[in-house]
This record gives sequence, structure tokens and C-alpha cells, in this order.
Amino acid sequence: MDDFKSLIRHVPDFPKKGILFYDITTLLKQKGALKEVTERLVDLYRDRAIDLVVGIESRGFIFAPTVACELGAGFVPVRKPGKLPAEAIVETYDLEYGQDSLEVHRDAIREGQRVLLVDDLLATGGTAAATVQLIRRLGGQVMGAVFLVELEFLNGRSRLPDVEVRSLLQYQE
Amino acid sequence: MDDFKSLIRHVPDFPKKGILFYDITTLLKQKGALKEVTERLVDLYRDRAIDLVVGIESRGFIFAPTVACELGAGFVPVRKPGKLPAEAIVETYDLEYGQDSLEVHRDAIREGQRVLLVDDLLATGGTAAATVQLIRRLGGQVMGAVFLVELEFLNGRSRLPDVEVRSLLQYQE
Repeated sequence: MDDFKSLIRHVPDFPKKGILFYDITTLLKQKGALKEVTERLVDLYRDRAIDLVVGIESRGFIFAPTVACELGAGFVPVRKPGKLPAEAIVETYDLEYGQDSLEVHRDAIREGQRVLLVDDLLATGGTAAATVQLIRRLGGQVMGAVFLVELEFLNGRSRLPDVEVRSLLQYQE
Repeated sequence: MDDFKSLIRHVPDFPKKGILFYDITTLLKQKGALKEVTERLVDLYRDRAIDLVVGIESRGFIFAPTVACELGAGFVPVRKPGKLPAEAIVETYDLEYGQDSLEVHRDAIREGQRVLLVDDLLATGGTAAATVQLIRRLGGQVMGAVFLVELEFLNGRSRLPDVEVRSLLQYQE
């Protein structure tokens, strides 16, 4: 399992023409792969006293829970509008065309808690930046943002200027 | 963390009037809760040589990955239509009003693999039954279906007649 990249499938023209999609399902179905990815993500943060791990719907619900579980931390879901049942705060961000929003429960994070953001993919950084805003508005300290895959050519890090950003696999195109 | 039920929030009239929603986010944000839930789910299947754990979008992506990780098994996502990038098979099921569909990649499961279904909630059993069909159509052996919460009054087990069904928490209303 040394070479995660060789297990990721490249799907051209998905979800639309001209986009090359990095499909991690071919990695995840391998025995032990999720465990190994999780351990590598966790190794970066094991000694940082993380209280909460935040994951973003839907694919972010894969690694954020496994990292939370391995760290013994709490897990907080950030969801699309209308999915959370209790009082939530909302953050709106720009897409290529139009806007989208993400929500988190108002009581999900307490002032001063140490929070790690985990997601499968850092692309343009829009959802990650919105999630960092949600965490900070609730008083959480963003201890880092860690991704399985980073599409470096989209420069998502520039949207997270004051966050410690890490990724396991980088792609240049 | 002995009493998971006391950490689950009851939200009346969500997502619509007359429905009592069991909100597990108040459990998940507790330090160590996800780890303890995962260990209890895993204890039921540790010696069953599970190859793959299947999770259903979106909330099923929370526990299925943690169980897969802990078992060292592969993880397979079952998704709403149009989300999977490669060739998929589809299963349609009835809702109270209308129909819905779920998909899985055709190459996600190989003939004879031992598959465990994990989800947060067993309600009417529609999505679980559709997922069991998807697994079997690809030749997978359904070793069991395990849920954090079971709403016994909705009798979801009746939709899974030949599956070993287990749950950690049961509600009678």
C-alpha cells in the first residue's frame, strides 16, 4: 500500500467536460487502505491535543470520522443547508457560477476548542475556507487542515492564508 | 459514555411536522464517543473475516468508514444518483411519496466477498434493503447489517428478511 496514487482512478470529463476526476473509491475498497490513510493523516496531529475533527458533507464524512476515531476526538459534521436539525450558523461562498452554503450546529464547538479540518480533496479551497470561517465564528481554534489529495494547480492554499495546510498526495495537473 | 441514549438530542417536527428526529451530532461531538460507538459496532463482527464495509450517503459515511478502518476492511460508498464517476449499477426503492435511487460502482465488490452494511439509522428499511440488493447483484455475501439506532416501531427489519440485523440503541416511539 506504499503507493496510494497508483490506486486512484483517473476519470476524464467528470463531473463535466474538461475536468479530470481523481476517484478514490478504487483506493478505499482495498483491504487496509482506509486504515493506512487514516494513520498517515493522524500521525501529523497525534500530539496536538485535538478536541474536535470537522468533516464536510459528503465525501469529507469518510476520513474526518476515521481520524476523529483514531485520535479519540469528537466529530462535527458541516452540512449542506437544511440537513441539520437544531439551530445552525451558515456561511455562503462563491462557486464558478453562483453560490453555495454550508452549515454547522451553533452548539457544535465551544470557545477555545482545538479543531482539525479533514477532507478528501483540496481543490479551489472554497468549501474549506467557508468551513474555517464557521469554526472560528463559534470560537474554535483551527489547528490545521489536512487533505488526502491536493490539486496544487488550483492553488486552494491561497484561500486558507492563516491555516496550517497539509496533504498526503499532490497533483500538478 | 455508558449511556449513549442520554447524549442523543430529540428534535420534534424535523424534517417535517409529526416526526421526532434523533440527532446524533450531540453524541458525536463528545471526546471518544465515536471511538466507543465504533468499537461496540466492531465487536459484533471482529471474527467474521469481513472484506468490505458498505456505507450509504450521507450520514452512513460516518460509521461505515470507522468500522472499516477498525476492521482493516475495505470501504465502499453507496451514493445518490450521478455522484459516482465510473460505471455504476442502480437500485430504485419506494418512498412514502414517490421513489428514490442508490448506486454503487460495478467494480466495487467482487464475487464472494464478505460484506458488512453499516448505517446510523434503521427506520423503514428502504435504503438498507436497496443496498442489500446492490451488494448481492455484484455477487457479495451480506454478512450482516448493523445500525447505531433502530426505530423498532417502523419495523425496518421486515424489509431485510434474510439478513442478520443488529443495532446498538433501540427506540419504541
